[in-house]
Amino acid sequence: MIVAGATGFAGALAAHLLWRHPGFELIAVTGRSEAGRRLDGLYPRYRVPLEIEELDLAWLSNASDSGFGIDAAIVAYPHAAAAPTTGALRETGARVVDLSADFRLTSLTTYEQWYGTHPRPDLLGEAVYGLTELHRAEIASANIVANPGCYPTASVLALAPLARAGLIADVVIDAKQGISGAGRAFDETTHLSMAGENILPYKVAGHRHRPEIEEQLQLDGLHTEIRVQFQAHLVPLDQGELVSCYVTPTRAVTEDELHELFVEAYDAEPFVEVADAPPGVREVQATNFCRLFAAADKHTGKVLVFSVIDNLWKGTSSQAVQNLNLMFGLPETEGLL
Amino acid sequence: MIVAGATGFAGALAAHLLWRHPGFELIAVTGRSEAGRRLDGLYPRYRVPLEIEELDLAWLSNASDSGFGIDAAIVAYPHAAAAPTTGALRETGARVVDLSADFRLTSLTTYEQWYGTHPRPDLLGEAVYGLTELHRAEIASANIVANPGCYPTASVLALAPLARAGLIADVVIDAKQGISGAGRAFDETTHLSMAGENILPYKVAGHRHRPEIEEQLQLDGLHTEIRVQFQAHLVPLDQGELVSCYVTPTRAVTEDELHELFVEAYDAEPFVEVADAPPGVREVQATNFCRLFAAADKHTGKVLVFSVIDNLWKGTSSQAVQNLNLMFGLPETEGLL
Amino acid sequence: MIVAGATGFAGALAAHLLWRHPGFELIAVTGRSEAGRRLDGLYPRYRVPLEIEELDLAWLSNASDSGFGIDAAIVAYPHAAAAPTTGALRETGARVVDLSADFRLTSLTTYEQWYGTHPRPDLLGEAVYGLTELHRAEIASANIVANPGCYPTASVLALAPLARAGLIADVVIDAKQGISGAGRAFDETTHLSMAGENILPYKVAGHRHRPEIEEQLQLDGLHTEIRVQFQAHLVPLDQGELVSCYVTPTRAVTEDELHELFVEAYDAEPFVEVADAPPGVREVQATNFCRLFAAADKHTGKVLVFSVIDNLWKGTSSQAVQNLNLMFGLPETEGLL
Amino acid sequence: MIVAGATGFAGALAAHLLWRHPGFELIAVTGRSEAGRRLDGLYPRYRVPLEIEELDLAWLSNASDSGFGIDAAIVAYPHAAAAPTTGALRETGARVVDLSADFRLTSLTTYEQWYGTHPRPDLLGEAVYGLTELHRAEIASANIVANPGCYPTASVLALAPLARAGLIADVVIDAKQGISGAGRAFDETTHLSMAGENILPYKVAGHRHRPEIEEQLQLDGLHTEIRVQFQAHLVPLDQGELVSCYVTPTRAVTEDELHELFVEAYDAEPFVEVADAPPGVREVQATNFCRLFAAADKHTGKVLVFSVIDNLWKGTSSQAVQNLNLMFGLPETEGLL
Repeated sequence: MIVAGATGFAGALAAHLLWRHPGFELIAVTGRSEAGRRLDGLYPRYRVPLEIEELDLAWLSNASDSGFGIDAAIVAYPHAAAAPTTGALRETGARVVDLSADFRLTSLTTYEQWYGTHPRPDLLGEAVYGLTELHRAEIASANIVANPGCYPTASVLALAPLARAGLIADVVIDAKQGISGAGRAFDETTHLSMAGENILPYKVAGHRHRPEIEEQLQLDGLHTEIRVQFQAHLVPLDQGELVSCYVTPTRAVTEDELHELFVEAYDAEPFVEVADAPPGVREVQATNFCRLFAAADKHTGKVLVFSVIDNLWKGTSSQAVQNLNLMFGLPETEGLL
Repeated sequence: MIVAGATGFAGALAAHLLWRHPGFELIAVTGRSEAGRRLDGLYPRYRVPLEIEELDLAWLSNASDSGFGIDAAIVAYPHAAAAPTTGALRETGARVVDLSADFRLTSLTTYEQWYGTHPRPDLLGEAVYGLTELHRAEIASANIVANPGCYPTASVLALAPLARAGLIADVVIDAKQGISGAGRAFDETTHLSMAGENILPYKVAGHRHRPEIEEQLQLDGLHTEIRVQFQAHLVPLDQGELVSCYVTPTRAVTEDELHELFVEAYDAEPFVEVADAPPGVREVQATNFCRLFAAADKHTGKVLVFSVIDNLWKGTSSQAVQNLNLMFGLPETEGLL
Repeated sequence: MIVAGATGFAGALAAHLLWRHPGFELIAVTGRSEAGRRLDGLYPRYRVPLEIEELDLAWLSNASDSGFGIDAAIVAYPHAAAAPTTGALRETGARVVDLSADFRLTSLTTYEQWYGTHPRPDLLGEAVYGLTELHRAEIASANIVANPGCYPTASVLALAPLARAGLIADVVIDAKQGISGAGRAFDETTHLSMAGENILPYKVAGHRHRPEIEEQLQLDGLHTEIRVQFQAHLVPLDQGELVSCYVTPTRAVTEDELHELFVEAYDAEPFVEVADAPPGVREVQATNFCRLFAAADKHTGKVLVFSVIDNLWKGTSSQAVQNLNLMFGLPETEGLL
Repeated sequence: MIVAGATGFAGALAAHLLWRHPGFELIAVTGRSEAGRRLDGLYPRYRVPLEIEELDLAWLSNASDSGFGIDAAIVAYPHAAAAPTTGALRETGARVVDLSADFRLTSLTTYEQWYGTHPRPDLLGEAVYGLTELHRAEIASANIVANPGCYPTASVLALAPLARAGLIADVVIDAKQGISGAGRAFDETTHLSMAGENILPYKVAGHRHRPEIEEQLQLDGLHTEIRVQFQAHLVPLDQGELVSCYVTPTRAVTEDELHELFVEAYDAEPFVEVADAPPGVREVQATNFCRLFAAADKHTGKVLVFSVIDNLWKGTSSQAVQNLNLMFGLPETEGLL
């Protein structure tokens, strides 16, 4: 197992989780800019003592021909850069969990509207959307898993029970996230003297996680059509994300019915918790848990759902490991509790 | 001029602002629990070298009879405790800016639903709602000014231009605030090891600032009837508040029309800024400014308005000073720039 | 195994660590103030689904007589309150790790100077100081382990190699700690609006961890006599502690000699890391690691040692578990990596 | 008056302070990288509506020849880049406060050891060290003022009373500073996900503020020779700096004597406060104050001095304005309270 692109926040955490995972063997971490440096030098908090190498696809291909290829890879590349590498790794026989957006959208048109030309549209049909709780069976047998965005993970888990019941007439999703969501970008959004003591709305009326949420709420018989109002905000903490969903229901919904919907949906889930009080993001930091709280507002008739995850864990890297557990027949919680 | 209740965050800041104000003389600060201590001992960052005294209404009354009474007071007491003191101070001839909710709502029924029995309903008619930009004329001649809540300040300034134009069919207000909003309360919501690295929704579907916002949006010919979805969140910073408003308009609104509405409403205002980019709360910290940004979302047809203030300044204490400036015929910006 | 006093930060984390520990069974958590509440209600981030009970020593004693007693307990009580409970638990046959200061000092005189009358001086002789790396053998067979204070843990690990070599003529320890060090205290030192954006020296020239550090540096043939200048500071973060030690050496020390001293001392230690760059506290957060960096300053001739730990983990609760591992013959790292 | 280099933290704050200053007129702000942009676009929290221009020395020189030159400038350039510009501005007749290190050290040898070749050593003799409280008279008539570093400001104010009395045998200065001290640098030391929840020692045994502190403690009859142990740390906040000084005195010093020394030194100072409790940095944020607290440790015989300033204000830009007030015969506190 390798992590390609281990120098960013997502890749580094994926490497950390795989390195300490009892069921997998992490044999290499790759990265262009920091090749030659050790990963635990770049990320001293993750104790992964591997040297960062450049990804050598030719070597991997030969190894594979000789029967010594890798069985799986996590690809943590930027959007559009990921697809070619995912394709190449796939061709060496490896199963891939791709953390980028390249294979998340089923509609090529939508993809190209938000991300530009798709480098490997031929692979779109092969990819499975990796929101574990919604697509467990397909993930288990998939060769390419498109790991969801962090906002879609929290939002779709929050709204799926309502969407499935046809209850969403309109929805506003107000998302708040810590600065790690901006990744290893060094700029005005991440400098502590600018991001600290601040709350900042960003990408107003145009975040590319919105189409991903809309697709998922419409797939799998969830809902027919829905236009989501999605708005992201940066808040001054490291890891953690809350989405507050304001749903105008298609009909009146009682508190009891609401509770039942959520319990039924998630009772058997090892990583989704239905809470009886509004959750804070601290409750899920550095875990693969998603914690949900739903309420009906008698004054307005709206349904409120609050959903917290750690954007780097369940929102990215630990969900990738959850998916790998499924793909390789391990207990879904292995290495994640 | 005195500040009654100067030991809480709001009262202490009010004292600080009045102490350094070139046009007012702060002669006393009062507080029961810390009487005898100096205010700059309790709040070392505010350099107000006055000893905290117990409020002596009898003395004030006599002083007043002898023609040496105080001309004005800021009352920073908890809700329900404030009204009797405001009344008593009023009876000594002082004009009062009351920071509590006691005189904010015109409807006694609504007040008692949220705050319990009103101690001085007789004074309700005399009070003016102190959102300076909306009620300037009445404030100038008022004897009791009910200083607005911080959320209503940010929300009503954000929505008034739309409400006035009859454009609000439905609105969701998602508010985020720093921990100073909880005041000098020592508990789980303010402990840095609990509030830090956290984002927490609170008072789900039941914040008492909601009726205040609704009343203001319906008063003064602003709007006929509107049920506001209001939700507050605590985020890990000290001072600062952002409200993100999601308006379903009664008819389609263009970006240009929107811009014009806001510029027209606030062009002449010294403390309201219409921004051309989403504002962060850092931009208004420790100031009396409210900064607004409005956008139309073509995808959903909704109108978005973002409004930032410092909850302790424009949201509370500096707005009180702005009102006092008006009440005493000083330039509105005096001591606030 | 039980945790007595699980409602504070230290006890709750100890319960969390034992609950997920593969080699121990946590059967009860106790606490007076919150009895009847579930621990995961009080600490939603720790998923320990046990109800908090009042400690029932009579029941435990009976159970013990019937051969069903508990084998061990972690006692997380305040200083002076801990000793009687530790004694009582000891009398039921349980081996105890006491997180308080009650059994840390060998000198009763020193104890009473800093903490008042000792409730169980009779047990002092039985207790072993639980700084694992220095007292491994005695801890393994101990019945009462006095778990070290967080500052002594970081400081003594930093200075032991120098003390052992007789190199310390004089030492200044400047310690910085996150707010969790103040525990579940709700006051001005922990309120985010006061502790945030602050750096605050506290207990100037009189912190009671100082005699503990001095005792340890003088024990076990480490050093003859040394008066430590110890100063603590609160900084705005949750968990994490750095001690910066400035040693005036008894003779000139080279960089090489210094490096060798530290490598030799800690090379075989699973939880002490000798770094080649100044460590930040982030590197050890939520771990049982202590990371050290030593340097010789040519300009002044002084030796500098920087030592980081997580004050709640290695500084308190995870070191307690490390000690329990030793006491029960488990691998020292069990449940801690 | 102009600010040359207004795009960094120090220059932008200087521009903000001069813009609102009642006694000065800020006519231009310059900067190469952001020329053409408005300063209030780059720093929305500072409401300075000037367009950033490239510095046009030829134009200034002509203006000066025609009698329309500027009377003063603040130069906020990086070390070594500042001196030539300061020289050129000086030649147009402007008096300059230089925020860089270029003219702080009297010894050219020491300068070149730490900063490389000096671009204008010919001007060294003309420059006055701008620690207002120590060099007031020379500053008033100076044409070039070398504004002190932030650490030297806090440290020298803390130690001057002891140095002047010949009391310092040895001193350790442990400094802690917020992230704004790193300036507008976008890297691993300023990213909130790395700097947040961290405490990090940096430039171990080699910070270039050390020789500046040593020079100042030896100048003006303060002390004969002293080798300072200086160590800096980054802590997770924006603005604020604490230096904790541990002095081994040349003879025993009592608490009373200590107190007297400090009161005598600073009683008449408008911006230095001698506190009777350990100060936190919050107490001086966004002010020009330095707050000091001194204590004698009976256990070790050492003298402790704690000194807090806002590194960007008294540590940099507001001290520059304090100096300009002196240079132009205004009250020293003008525009700074």
